[in-house]
Amino acid sequence: MNVSLDTLRQTALAVLTRFGYPADEAQTILEVLMYAQLRGNNQGVVKLIGAGLPRDPRAAPIRTVRDTKLSALLDGGWNIGMVVMRASSQLAIEKCRQHGMSLVGTQRIASSTGAIGYYARQIANAGFIGLVFAGSGEYVAMHGSYEPLFGTNPLAIGIPTAAQPLVLDMATSAIARYGIIEAQTAGRTLPPDVAYDAAGQPTTDPSVALAGAIRTFGGHKGAGLALMVEMLTRPLVAATYSADGRKLDWGNLVIAIDPELLVDAQSFKQEASDLIQRVKATRRLPGFDEVLVPGERGDRLMQAALESGSIEIDDALWRALLQAAKPDSKE
Amino acid sequence: MNVSLDTLRQTALAVLTRFGYPADEAQTILEVLMYAQLRGNNQGVVKLIGAGLPRDPRAAPIRTVRDTKLSALLDGGWNIGMVVMRASSQLAIEKCRQHGMSLVGTQRIASSTGAIGYYARQIANAGFIGLVFAGSGEYVAMHGSYEPLFGTNPLAIGIPTAAQPLVLDMATSAIARYGIIEAQTAGRTLPPDVAYDAAGQPTTDPSVALAGAIRTFGGHKGAGLALMVEMLTRPLVAATYSADGRKLDWGNLVIAIDPELLVDAQSFKQEASDLIQRVKATRRLPGFDEVLVPGERGDRLMQAALESGSIEIDDALWRALLQAAKPDSKE
Repeated sequence: MNVSLDTLRQTALAVLTRFGYPADEAQTILEVLMYAQLRGNNQGVVKLIGAGLPRDPRAAPIRTVRDTKLSALLDGGWNIGMVVMRASSQLAIEKCRQHGMSLVGTQRIASSTGAIGYYARQIANAGFIGLVFAGSGEYVAMHGSYEPLFGTNPLAIGIPTAAQPLVLDMATSAIARYGIIEAQTAGRTLPPDVAYDAAGQPTTDPSVALAGAIRTFGGHKGAGLALMVEMLTRPLVAATYSADGRKLDWGNLVIAIDPELLVDAQSFKQEASDLIQRVKATRRLPGFDEVLVPGERGDRLMQAALESGSIEIDDALWRALLQAAKPDSKE
Repeated sequence: MNVSLDTLRQTALAVLTRFGYPADEAQTILEVLMYAQLRGNNQGVVKLIGAGLPRDPRAAPIRTVRDTKLSALLDGGWNIGMVVMRASSQLAIEKCRQHGMSLVGTQRIASSTGAIGYYARQIANAGFIGLVFAGSGEYVAMHGSYEPLFGTNPLAIGIPTAAQPLVLDMATSAIARYGIIEAQTAGRTLPPDVAYDAAGQPTTDPSVALAGAIRTFGGHKGAGLALMVEMLTRPLVAATYSADGRKLDWGNLVIAIDPELLVDAQSFKQEASDLIQRVKATRRLPGFDEVLVPGERGDRLMQAALESGSIEIDDALWRALLQAAKPDSKE
C-alpha cells in the first residue's frame, strides 16, 4: 500500500495523541519513528500498533541524579525512551562540545528509544563520534540458554564524515523484537535461527517466539557483545528491578567523543569519507552489485521517500495503524 | 606435547632476544604472549614462529603528538604493539583516574598488540571500564567483497566486577590471522566460511587464505563493526600509509571510563557480578553443560596452567619455536 508521508505522519500523530502524549513529546516520538520507517528499519510505526506505546501514567519530569563536567546520570521519570534520549543525547553533545568527551546514562525509562541510529546520527551531525547503547525488557537469551534475560541491546555508532554521517545501528539480538512483531502483523514466518519457543526449541512462528526467547546474533561473539551492552545499560545506569528481580527499566548510555582530541577534525572527516569510498571501490564477490556500508541502504530509502512524498507500507500494518488512530478504538 | 611454563617462557624470551628486543621490551611482549597462550587464545607464542615479530629497525622512543587532560595521541615510533600499548593503557588509566574518562590513540606501530583483552583487563583491574580497539595490516574484506582492506580489528571490553574482571576480546574478522597461521603450522584446514582465495572463492587452505582475504564475522552486522573499528584505529589516529595508499600502521584506541561518573563504583561491581551469576543460572539449551560468559573458558585454562606449571602445546608449534630460539637459526 502506498501512503503519503503527510497522511502517515497525521495518522501516527493521532495514535500518539490517543496514547496521551503532550504535543512536544508526540512530535519527538513521531520524528524518531518516521526516521526508522523511511529507512526501512523495523523501529518505525509498527511500534504504535497492538499494545503500542501508551504514555506511562507515572511519567514525571526528567531529573539529574548525578552530574560532573563530563557526565550525567538522568532519571528518565518513566518517560518513553525517545523523550529521555532527546534530553540525554543533547546533554552529551553539550558536554562534549565543552570538554571533548562525555558520558550520559539514563535510567527509569518506560519503553523503547526507537532506532538509536537516530541519536548516533545527531551526535555525528554535531561533529562528534557517538556511541549509543540501549537496554530493554528481558527478551533475549544468552548463547547456550533459552531463558530471556537480556534486552535486544542495540548499539549504534555515528561517525562524522565530509558528507553525511556514517551510522551503524544494529541489535545484538538475531532479530529486533519489532522485527518479530512486524512479521506477526504481516503474517510472515521468521528466519529459522533467530528465536526459541518457551521450551527452548527453535521456532519460526512470531507469536511463539514472543512467548519464548530471541537469540543473540553472530554466535558467541554476538552474545558477548549483547552481555556487554547489558552491562552498560543495566548496572552502569543503576537500572530498576521488580521485587522478584526482573528488570523493569529500558536504560541507555551515550558516549560522545570529539575527534579533535586526537587529530584535526576536518582531516578526520575527510579520511573517514575516503575510507568509505575505498571500501565501496573494493572488488566485489559474485552476486553483489555493490559494496554497501552501514546505513547506506536506509539513507537511499529515506531520500527516495522524501523525494516522492510517499512510502510503501504493509497493508496489515497500515490497517492496524488506522484502527489505532480511531478515537473509539480499544487497545 | 606438555611443556613446563618455565621452559616455554625461557624459549620465548630467547626468541624475543634474537629478534633484537631490549630486556624490558622482551619482558613486556612475553607477558602478553603468555597471557594469550595460557588462555588458549591464538595470540600466543605462534606469533614468534615463521617471520615472527622482529624488532623494527626504525624503532624510536614513543612520543606524545597531541595531549589534553582527557586524551593523548601517541606516536609509537614504529615499536611493536605490546610496547606501545603498555604506554597507552597506562596513560589511559592515569588520565581516567584524574578525570573519570580518557581516550588514548596510538599511531606508527610496527606490528600486533597481541591479545587486547590483556589491556582491557588491566584497565578493569584499575576499576574502570576499558574499551580497546586494534587495527592491523590489510587482511580482511568487507561484506560483499573479497579484497583485503580492514585489519582483523579486534575489540575488547573490560568490566570491573566484585571478583575478577569480565573481559570480552574478539576479532571482528571470522578468524584471527594468527588462527590461520596456527592452523597452517599444525597442518589443519580452516572452517569453510572464514576466508577467500585471491580470486574470491571460499577456501579452507590456510596458505591460500593468507594470500587471499579473511571474512568478517556475523554477516553484515559484524562487517559494520569491523568498519567502525577501522574508523577508530585508522582516521582517528592518523594512521600512516605507503605512497600507493596501503595502510602501514597498526593503530590502536583505548577508552577508559570510571563507573563512578554515573553510579557508586562498588555497587556497579557488585551488580556486574550479580548479572554474571544470573546469566550463568539461566536455563540451558540441550548440549550445553554450562552457560559461559566471555573469557570464562580462558580464565579456567590459565588457572589450570598456572597450578600445574605446564601447558599442552601443539608439537609442530613447539618444534618451530625451539628452532626460532636457536642462536644460528635463519628466519
